[in-house]
Amino acid sequence: MHEFELIRQVFREADYARPGGAVVRSIGDDCALLHIAVGEQLAVSTDSLLEDVHFPAGADGFLLGQRALAVAVSDLAAMGARPLAFTLALSLPRADVDWLRELSRGLQAMAQQTGTPLVGGDTTRGPLNIGVTVMGTVPDGQALLRSGAKPGQQLWVSGPLGAATAALQVLQDGDNDYPGLFAAYWSPRPQLELGQWLRGKDGAALDVSDGLLADAGHMAAESGVRLVIERELVPVHPEALALSADRAPEWALCGGDDYQLVFTLFEQQAAALQAQFPQACCIGRVCEGQGVLLVDGQGRPVEFSRRGYQHF
Amino acid sequence: MHEFELIRQVFREADYARPGGAVVRSIGDDCALLHIAVGEQLAVSTDSLLEDVHFPAGADGFLLGQRALAVAVSDLAAMGARPLAFTLALSLPRADVDWLRELSRGLQAMAQQTGTPLVGGDTTRGPLNIGVTVMGTVPDGQALLRSGAKPGQQLWVSGPLGAATAALQVLQDGDNDYPGLFAAYWSPRPQLELGQWLRGKDGAALDVSDGLLADAGHMAAESGVRLVIERELVPVHPEALALSADRAPEWALCGGDDYQLVFTLFEQQAAALQAQFPQACCIGRVCEGQGVLLVDGQGRPVEFSRRGYQHF
Repeated sequence: MHEFELIRQVFREADYARPGGAVVRSIGDDCALLHIAVGEQLAVSTDSLLEDVHFPAGADGFLLGQRALAVAVSDLAAMGARPLAFTLALSLPRADVDWLRELSRGLQAMAQQTGTPLVGGDTTRGPLNIGVTVMGTVPDGQALLRSGAKPGQQLWVSGPLGAATAALQVLQDGDNDYPGLFAAYWSPRPQLELGQWLRGKDGAALDVSDGLLADAGHMAAESGVRLVIERELVPVHPEALALSADRAPEWALCGGDDYQLVFTLFEQQAAALQAQFPQACCIGRVCEGQGVLLVDGQGRPVEFSRRGYQHF
Repeated sequence: MHEFELIRQVFREADYARPGGAVVRSIGDDCALLHIAVGEQLAVSTDSLLEDVHFPAGADGFLLGQRALAVAVSDLAAMGARPLAFTLALSLPRADVDWLRELSRGLQAMAQQTGTPLVGGDTTRGPLNIGVTVMGTVPDGQALLRSGAKPGQQLWVSGPLGAATAALQVLQDGDNDYPGLFAAYWSPRPQLELGQWLRGKDGAALDVSDGLLADAGHMAAESGVRLVIERELVPVHPEALALSADRAPEWALCGGDDYQLVFTLFEQQAAALQAQFPQACCIGRVCEGQGVLLVDGQGRPVEFSRRGYQHF
């Protein structure tokens, strides 16, 4: 099937690929055209998902579509940006239109949930590779940066961790008794409302993709601070604990792909935060120094590997 | 090697990935941040290049880098947009830093030639796949669309065609006597100045990626017109002709990847166009009707296959 017709048939007709709002021109020309409001900056991020690297082989198209877009939109959330649009670079071993329609349904579900229309793409024959570039907008100077952590602030996470790593165990075992893990892995919820709430509050933010400790390390390095994390305060997903009370705490610290936000703020904003985002947990504090220090309930340092989740 | 460090070492330190101008934040955070001037629209396009599909296996990193970015920037040229930035989604079979540095040098050469800084990326292990998303800006309402062709206009091409297809023959034969073909294939020159010159001149434009006849077919369909192309007026690259006087004319009509612009304009603008872009050639005219009609010197219809260059 001709590339052009493939894209046309499946994606161009899709509800989530129609022009409207900020989308002046969508799929079908050399470029899409987007309107950016005065006073807004453009936020851009690119992610690729590869079979056997980022998701199990033979994955369901619908689930994969949801997850591919959610993972990318999560980067917008981490900047405090509002989604504008996304483009899709798809490499497929064969032009399987039924599977493509499922993928498209999954993309559509997440596109509608997050308000992120599809505006362009490229489909080629090759090993399965789903490349998503998301664009969003953020008021000038208000983006949440990794470099914004300040000594004296609290360190927070937006919700429980470890679910994605636990889900991969379950998926490998063919065990379907953990719907919460399944949902956490296949349709992580980009923390867009929280990211936008955090704007202008003088803290740092990022989303947990490599693992809490590894990502906290990135924030510490960019901010030039030390992050002290209290191990007992790190929220562990209850179904991960049910699956393995022994291993779940490590999944929460080192497992990737949870797409919760890790962020800092001053204590006086904590009550307002908790009122609006009850799942958020304070897990530590920002100090002078460098690196990440993991401590136990008595404040004693705990050894850990900083590796986290790595693709290479 | 850790993904994060890989990106850091090779791309973050690159001269073409520094913040500055419209780039408020470059690589290193969850998203890049870009400034869009008031009165400008954002133009976005995504392209993937795969080994054995879009370029020969074992290709030189430098050449590949040049070509990957040129192909993507050509879509900005076809909209009349000015480049703003690009992101790179790279899948690599191994973390070969020497090869990556060559790829980066090639990207840098084209980034500097076209004024398109790198602002973000994602590197994963997998079959070689180079995904480039380019962003540009165009004054509100002035983008060149495929749908803009009007009966009575002339049909033009920005320069000679057939070089890329000829180059693939030469590359397969290991023959290096055709430096012009080699250059046309590995570093096509995005027609940015011409695209920007064509803004506000009431015509249509696209870049030749699928082949002249196939791409003219897209323009005819989007514009709801018939495009009449005079076979003898289509400029054929001289080195393609030197390689095969028999086959070169067909390469010019049906071969893809030349990244010249095909565009329409009214006759009264032709002299100004030719003064500034002497390589441009008038190859036909826009009529009422539909589809593409190829005619010989006497105006008689010539049969042709509309297939062009296809990935599927």
